[in-house]
Amino acid sequence: MEQVEKMRHTLSHVLAAAVQELYPTTTFGVGPAIEDGFYYDIDFGDTKVSDADLKKIEKKMRGIVARKCEMAKREVAREEALEWAKQNGQKYKVELIEELPEEETITFYDLKDPRSGEVLFADLCKGPHVKDLGEVKAFQLMRTSGAYWRGDEKREMLTRIYGVAFETEEELEAYLARQEEAKKRDHRKLGKELDLFCFSELVGAGLPLFTPRGTILREEMSELSLGLRGKAGFKKVWTPHITKVDLYKKSGHYSKFGEELFMVHSQVNGEEFAMKPMNCPHHAQIFASKPRTYREMPVRYMEATTDYRDEKTGELGGLSRVRSLTQDDSHVFCRKEQIKDEIRQLVEIVRKLYSTVGMDKLRARLSYRDDSDKYLGDPELWRMAQEQIKQAAMDNGLDYFEQEGEAAFYGPKIDFMAEDALGREHQVATVQIDFVQPERFGLEFVNEKGEKERPVMIHHATLGSIERFLSVFIEHTGGWFPLWCAPEMVRVLTVNDKTEEYVGEVEEVLRGVVLNEPVQGNELRYEIDRSDDSLGKKIKRATEMKIPVVLIIGEKDAAERVVSVRTREGEEKVKLDELRGWLERKD
Amino acid sequence: MEQVEKMRHTLSHVLAAAVQELYPTTTFGVGPAIEDGFYYDIDFGDTKVSDADLKKIEKKMRGIVARKCEMAKREVAREEALEWAKQNGQKYKVELIEELPEEETITFYDLKDPRSGEVLFADLCKGPHVKDLGEVKAFQLMRTSGAYWRGDEKREMLTRIYGVAFETEEELEAYLARQEEAKKRDHRKLGKELDLFCFSELVGAGLPLFTPRGTILREEMSELSLGLRGKAGFKKVWTPHITKVDLYKKSGHYSKFGEELFMVHSQVNGEEFAMKPMNCPHHAQIFASKPRTYREMPVRYMEATTDYRDEKTGELGGLSRVRSLTQDDSHVFCRKEQIKDEIRQLVEIVRKLYSTVGMDKLRARLSYRDDSDKYLGDPELWRMAQEQIKQAAMDNGLDYFEQEGEAAFYGPKIDFMAEDALGREHQVATVQIDFVQPERFGLEFVNEKGEKERPVMIHHATLGSIERFLSVFIEHTGGWFPLWCAPEMVRVLTVNDKTEEYVGEVEEVLRGVVLNEPVQGNELRYEIDRSDDSLGKKIKRATEMKIPVVLIIGEKDAAERVVSVRTREGEEKVKLDELRGWLERKD
Repeated sequence: MEQVEKMRHTLSHVLAAAVQELYPTTTFGVGPAIEDGFYYDIDFGDTKVSDADLKKIEKKMRGIVARKCEMAKREVAREEALEWAKQNGQKYKVELIEELPEEETITFYDLKDPRSGEVLFADLCKGPHVKDLGEVKAFQLMRTSGAYWRGDEKREMLTRIYGVAFETEEELEAYLARQEEAKKRDHRKLGKELDLFCFSELVGAGLPLFTPRGTILREEMSELSLGLRGKAGFKKVWTPHITKVDLYKKSGHYSKFGEELFMVHSQVNGEEFAMKPMNCPHHAQIFASKPRTYREMPVRYMEATTDYRDEKTGELGGLSRVRSLTQDDSHVFCRKEQIKDEIRQLVEIVRKLYSTVGMDKLRARLSYRDDSDKYLGDPELWRMAQEQIKQAAMDNGLDYFEQEGEAAFYGPKIDFMAEDALGREHQVATVQIDFVQPERFGLEFVNEKGEKERPVMIHHATLGSIERFLSVFIEHTGGWFPLWCAPEMVRVLTVNDKTEEYVGEVEEVLRGVVLNEPVQGNELRYEIDRSDDSLGKKIKRATEMKIPVVLIIGEKDAAERVVSVRTREGEEKVKLDELRGWLERKD
Repeated sequence: MEQVEKMRHTLSHVLAAAVQELYPTTTFGVGPAIEDGFYYDIDFGDTKVSDADLKKIEKKMRGIVARKCEMAKREVAREEALEWAKQNGQKYKVELIEELPEEETITFYDLKDPRSGEVLFADLCKGPHVKDLGEVKAFQLMRTSGAYWRGDEKREMLTRIYGVAFETEEELEAYLARQEEAKKRDHRKLGKELDLFCFSELVGAGLPLFTPRGTILREEMSELSLGLRGKAGFKKVWTPHITKVDLYKKSGHYSKFGEELFMVHSQVNGEEFAMKPMNCPHHAQIFASKPRTYREMPVRYMEATTDYRDEKTGELGGLSRVRSLTQDDSHVFCRKEQIKDEIRQLVEIVRKLYSTVGMDKLRARLSYRDDSDKYLGDPELWRMAQEQIKQAAMDNGLDYFEQEGEAAFYGPKIDFMAEDALGREHQVATVQIDFVQPERFGLEFVNEKGEKERPVMIHHATLGSIERFLSVFIEHTGGWFPLWCAPEMVRVLTVNDKTEEYVGEVEEVLRGVVLNEPVQGNELRYEIDRSDDSLGKKIKRATEMKIPVVLIIGEKDAAERVVSVRTREGEEKVKLDELRGWLERKD
């Protein structure tokens, strides 16, 4: 275990010691180290402890740290451990000890003042810990929350106290600044402020409705993704959002998706349908709709279409997790020798897309089978496919790592993780090879010898769920979208109505601007603020809406045939004659 | 009644007379005149009569017509009529006579030979008819089908014999030719031949899947429709395909749509959802998602999104009637004084779109309220809205007619009918004013005086259901789509591989072609047929796929730096330098 993790773990004991001193009748659950910090789950009985109490507890912790207490480990006999827990009324510890395997050595850690020898807090714990609190560096308590004992909603509700800890004060401060920034960038908050999407109680949780601005954003993303694939030979198809359950029984998804399937019932004749949770079986039906020959392979379909998954209401929040998820989905039907080229092409598309949206830092996990028998399909085919995947990753210079036993039962895959502006990593695109569905649907094509051959399927989504991607992208950009996908690219602010004629000329220029990168034929979206408000107020409003380019037109600008262009980078004068070119070159 | 309708009605009696002579023990149902012809529903008992027997029956009919029989009307007492029907074993006529109101005068028509006085067929009938069969012109029997007595599936199944009749032989021939043409253009047949869409038994009836070619067609249509509205200030929004039923209970659609609603069930928590059969309540939720002021009115939303309606399986066929119908839907939220301008704008959009797709002949039905109390909303508002609708129709020079009592309960409307290349009229676009939903959802905006005001909603779809529109458009064009929406706009046919370098230059030109009318930024879709097949075979294949522009490149073309351009209009040589311009100008 790394030093910082040991320190975080030790701090959870210090937290417990401080709590015990302040609230002597509390009962303790567990207190592990976690990413960036630690927590302890505590039963305060009838006492209500909230965020307001954290300052007091943290102060007490700092006092304990200052005493440079040791973390002393000792082995304890099972009987003795149980006796201790019972005597101290620590019912959760009793439960934990009773569940330990007979043969396991039980250890306790004592938080002990080296001078007085006083034990501030003794806890059942496997360790490891730092030697003494002199090794504890920067930390801070963050918040409280409720947590069921052992995550079981039928058990007691405890209070979880969260803290963070780092090796240096600088790291802690950077973390806190990131948190503050993340709060400002929360996509639910920005979604409302920038008027991107909304929810309606009458429509239901997890079912966002996109306003005009949000719709532009989602369509530009979808266009970007489909455009990249269109150039690579993918053809758009269209499939309905429901299907008879027969399709999923045949594909095997019916049992796999289980409760997540939204079932659809015909009142007319009692037929049972399901809303599609994914699109592969539908696309396989299009492939199967006519005889195929090797000449047309690979056949590549793509569709940006909405799938429905019945997530639990408690798990829904903003766009991160929704019930209506629009996938920029695609499926390649190819020969097994074509796998490598297809994967290479898909990896390139992923790199291009994430670089375009400013998330260059991509990692890829190559998931392979292991020797267990849970995988379907010919092992030799697996071996070949895994090699082709790896080759494609190397050819693309991907930052990748390999994991055996992480493949889907139907084939090996690549999952991509992208890092956002706050350094958080998000799972995004995926490329999955599938040997099973072509088998289940009996897909085939005629090869050069006139024999029937089974194709391989490659599933791929570049953005993944567009809703989830937007939740990441909104926070990544903080709502300052690049020009090409900004719902309102340009806002013109007039200073008074004496420039009306010149504003007309500016508008004429704006109407003619078409951006062709990264999305083809993207006409300029602009608004003109002709309201009677002061220029200051107009600028404030445009800044609040995070409009990337603001054009200010005063009488002097009109006289000199220029516009004052205001962006996040600063302000400059651009000649009217050069405005079009300036906009077409702007990122 | 027009003369031709009288003739058609008389022919149904002649048909019955012929049948009676050939099959003396038959029992007769009813025999009305219908559009283009007539039919008679007949109970042949155990005798099986099919299309194969029509020749014989028609021959007998011609014999009767040649005798120039009269149609003699006589009044008959109720007793006498019943007595006649019972004696002749005409149980269906018994039923009809018994249901006639007491006070009604009962009339019979006798088909009588003027020379012999013989009555060939006597029938309970209100008339009118032609005086004698000398007035009968061109006719032909068409087909038989099954028909339940009185349309009730619990009653007897009769045999319906259909015939057509016209004033002249030329009209009959034109009609038969049109029928023949319609059969060739059947969109289900062309959908398969041109690889536009398919069905899968696993997915279900009424749920088409669109192949790459069909997807292009539907997207171009959708783009055309959304593009026209985008220019008119409509903004795209996006809404999920399901909603809690609460939304429809509040909107009133829950009871109205009844069994047609596909119900969606959450297995996770038992929540009840429905698939949206229309989009207005969702759009109203977006309007309601933030406070509105008069400055932003009208607010105009549009969305091309798929609605689901649970049509009976027996009613489904090709794209004409589907369960997944994609609507190019839009909703205006406006002030009541803005209705006229909004309608005028929508009518213009409808005219533009149907003229673009080559269906210039539009008729509009203006549907108003009557004096009954089935309409909701202020009558004064209705009067005003109806006036604005009429004014908009006149301003646009629409071919319109007015119908009182045909309005929806929530407001007056305009329905558009478009005529296709075969002269058939199809109901297409609609514009509907709605006073009720804004009320139900409590929609409002703040007016100039700072008071809350209720907006009016205007529903509009230009294409209507894209699937249904395509069924019409495919038959209207016979699959010869205009260049801009053709799935494959251009196919290059090589004669041999000696021109490969020149073909590369041609492809370079094709890659640069972008059509901007009627849809902006439409990149050229082309394929190159480099197969080893003969040129004849390649041309045959391209013609079968109805590719609008075929470029043939032989060695002579390469030497002269031209291409041989083959379209439906003929063949011409176009210089390579001029090819781009030629394509950009092509319809």
